[in-house]
Amino acid sequence: MGVDQAFSALGDPIRVEIVTRLSRGPASVSELARPYAMSLRGVLKHVQVLEDAGLVATFKEGRVRRCELQSQRIEDATRWLERVQRHWERRIDRLEDYAKRTRTR
Amino acid sequence: MGVDQAFSALGDPIRVEIVTRLSRGPASVSELARPYAMSLRGVLKHVQVLEDAGLVATFKEGRVRRCELQSQRIEDATRWLERVQRHWERRIDRLEDYAKRTRTR
Repeated sequence: MGVDQAFSALGDPIRVEIVTRLSRGPASVSELARPYAMSLRGVLKHVQVLEDAGLVATFKEGRVRRCELQSQRIEDATRWLERVQRHWERRIDRLEDYAKRTRTR
Repeated sequence: MGVDQAFSALGDPIRVEIVTRLSRGPASVSELARPYAMSLRGVLKHVQVLEDAGLVATFKEGRVRRCELQSQRIEDATRWLERVQRHWERRIDRLEDYAKRTRTR
């Protein structure tokens, strides 16, 4: 699974908030639904998108569905973005060095 | 603009590759198109999605459209993911501490 699938799942404001909430610890679907004027079904759909992308795992505990963050995919996406940023900054540094060298000539 | 819009734009394998390419420096749309069996028009559409999300800026230089990464949005998205990961790791650390304390009792 590529990072694009993780990004695609995170491409929604509600799912961004769900992941933010889950980074503080597991929660049930009804706990996740609480801040929103949304049906459990609606929240469950968002959770399933995150689950399909491997960002979240869910477990049935009796009648309650618990949701937990899956760190591996988050890490993959973070690392990819950090690499893009690093490359970009290195390029800017090189341009600045070049500009300095040209100025002092 | 929220991070979800950056993630949504990155939620596609071609756009992930375009951003990877642009992290090494600006490129024209035709340079971006070269690795793909895709029309310029098709690549331009992907570039426009990235531009609308503020991840890429484009400039006309005569008949050539140059594309350049916009670092601010990349940084915002990176920081958000790093924060999620940090929270999550802190929680795991706390759980491990708790497990250790309970074992040694």
